Amino acid sequence: MKEDQINDLESKYEKLRTIMELKKADGCLLTVDVNLFYMTGRVFDGFLYLPVEGDPFYFVKRPNDFEGKNVAFIRKPEQLPDMFEEFHLKMPRKLMLEADELPFNEYNRLLTAFHVSSAQNATSVLREMRSIKTGWEIEQTRMSGKLHDKTYADIPKCYRTGMTDLEFQIEIERLMRLNGSFGLLRAFGLNMNTYIGNVLAGENAEAPSPFDFALGGAGQTPFSPIGANGTKLEEGMSVMVDVAGNYMPYMTDMSRVFSIGKLNDLAMHAHQVSIDIHNEIARYARPGIACADLYNRAAEIAEKEDLSEYFMGWTQHAKFVGHGVGLQINELPVIAPRSKEALISGMIIALEPKFVIPGTGAVGIENTYLVNDDGLEKLTLTNEEIIELK
Amino acid sequence: MKEDQINDLESKYEKLRTIMELKKADGCLLTVDVNLFYMTGRVFDGFLYLPVEGDPFYFVKRPNDFEGKNVAFIRKPEQLPDMFEEFHLKMPRKLMLEADELPFNEYNRLLTAFHVSSAQNATSVLREMRSIKTGWEIEQTRMSGKLHDKTYADIPKCYRTGMTDLEFQIEIERLMRLNGSFGLLRAFGLNMNTYIGNVLAGENAEAPSPFDFALGGAGQTPFSPIGANGTKLEEGMSVMVDVAGNYMPYMTDMSRVFSIGKLNDLAMHAHQVSIDIHNEIARYARPGIACADLYNRAAEIAEKEDLSEYFMGWTQHAKFVGHGVGLQINELPVIAPRSKEALISGMIIALEPKFVIPGTGAVGIENTYLVNDDGLEKLTLTNEEIIELK
Repeated sequence: MKEDQINDLESKYEKLRTIMELKKADGCLLTVDVNLFYMTGRVFDGFLYLPVEGDPFYFVKRPNDFEGKNVAFIRKPEQLPDMFEEFHLKMPRKLMLEADELPFNEYNRLLTAFHVSSAQNATSVLREMRSIKTGWEIEQTRMSGKLHDKTYADIPKCYRTGMTDLEFQIEIERLMRLNGSFGLLRAFGLNMNTYIGNVLAGENAEAPSPFDFALGGAGQTPFSPIGANGTKLEEGMSVMVDVAGNYMPYMTDMSRVFSIGKLNDLAMHAHQVSIDIHNEIARYARPGIACADLYNRAAEIAEKEDLSEYFMGWTQHAKFVGHGVGLQINELPVIAPRSKEALISGMIIALEPKFVIPGTGAVGIENTYLVNDDGLEKLTLTNEEIIELK
Repeated sequence: MKEDQINDLESKYEKLRTIMELKKADGCLLTVDVNLFYMTGRVFDGFLYLPVEGDPFYFVKRPNDFEGKNVAFIRKPEQLPDMFEEFHLKMPRKLMLEADELPFNEYNRLLTAFHVSSAQNATSVLREMRSIKTGWEIEQTRMSGKLHDKTYADIPKCYRTGMTDLEFQIEIERLMRLNGSFGLLRAFGLNMNTYIGNVLAGENAEAPSPFDFALGGAGQTPFSPIGANGTKLEEGMSVMVDVAGNYMPYMTDMSRVFSIGKLNDLAMHAHQVSIDIHNEIARYARPGIACADLYNRAAEIAEKEDLSEYFMGWTQHAKFVGHGVGLQINELPVIAPRSKEALISGMIIALEPKFVIPGTGAVGIENTYLVNDDGLEKLTLTNEEIIELK
């Protein structure tokens, strides 16, 4: 691990300690992959314990070659009290645990191990911390954005006449992987599993989704009902490509639209309105602006342009127009009408004002932005126009 | 949905009702994707409620076009009591919830909604039910096995001299997807996320893993420390391919070994011993045989052949030699020394006695078997010898 990453982790320990002090917690125990990576720079099987005063301590089940300071190997959480004694750690009376992520039984097992009857919620604290990116994380995201752009620039080369959406997606996946996408795409929330991203062609964009993503798609199987469904790519169809920017652990999120032949006027107009919404929000947004206001401004423009019925879906409408992005694809804040959050410098957000035009498909773009002191900086720089596939 | 699948679902309702009767539960509420698919044939956002007496009832958040009998649309679990009244469902006093899968806060939210202080564990009940496959599920698995075999037959065509393990894997992934793999690979357990499968070449097979899979690999990033790590494929290396058989929701699991040039005698011997272990277990296994006995027999053969130190890992050893497979890649039973389970007719298990030979890589095979009344039936039929890549 390089020095800048080590310093980054130190700053997070400090921040979490300050939060614990405010919340009168004695210690925080983390075991969920994204939280472990956030605080330690790696995923392992075990626990990170951070006391309100003192250094972080690693309790590791696997791998068995885990190296570093303050590392103890452990088989099960019931060993924790003895280990705390052995390593002169004070047992916490007020503990923080990942209440929105740990399964009910695992959570209770940890409560029992620590001889406490309840704990504070580490998930909400970590999600809030993670929403404001550090300098090191911003650099990581920039690198992801560059590789994301590199992939998108070559997407037209993946197309051959007569393909299905799935065949097109398969070539895009290969391109992503050759450019360094590590595959696995993490999302927050029960059942929020998806593959490497989605390609939505024609009427498949109208399929209402069981998932809390912006758009749906019927998918290949009722076991994974999202994205491409085998639609043959034909004249007049839009093909929205929304594939992961997971080239570094800190991701970008981007969508672009390709077309088979020309799209109709309504689709072309809606696409331009999406670009206009981006430009308007980029002018308007800065730290302190309410996320709800961003959503409302987007919805107002859609309404003014007489596009409300197509905005964020056709048969079913998503209730947000953007979201934080980082280690997971759906981090805080949520850009939604009832969002209570305001923008903070250092947040990285994806904005995705999209329209579903019946019979044509999805149009509009998604970009990832860094919230700076003086506004938004775009991190996904691929050409925003609809590109005709040939 | 076809009639055989509808009958399949009916038989599961009946079985779960019988279990609830035995456990004196009034109803079972399911919301985890694999359990919903298992009981309804689709994944949706919402709840399936099965009372101990009466028909299943769907409470659906999304998609908004969900059709069928006994469907009510819902926004949040707090509406459940009113909806139970509206639809003349009896409120359960003894409820079953997915205690090993639902996050702590979501579980408690459901307890509160139902005005109960505790619930029985639906996860363990469903995992046990799911371990014994129905006739329809067995047919689905057979179809997956055939497509899995089709992909493996073409793997040598993915190779070009000078490739890295990752480049080789990327071409295999493309092949899988073209043959119908739907991508997303589900596993049971916190943090048990992996991509579409793993390709392990040379010394990378020695890397100890944070995951509870049979073998590890360092991976591309500490954020997803598993599988291929960019190793250049060179003379004398084994390349173990263990990629998903997720062509149907009910999966198969299979590993095969490819080589660059010839492998040394130790590796060739260990590979043959893996095949011998499969043959021995296939002769010996039948309903009623303890899973622990299967593990012990495999470990004994490895020991007799003086291969214990390489068995199931080198720097770190996995403590199992097989596992159930179905909607998730790691279902019950576990074929491990301390397993309490015995084989039951209808179980589908993957056996993977593997060896890691330092300097060479992983050898051995993995096959998926159906447990029949009179023994094991192999569902993955690809040639088991080491195939030299050219």
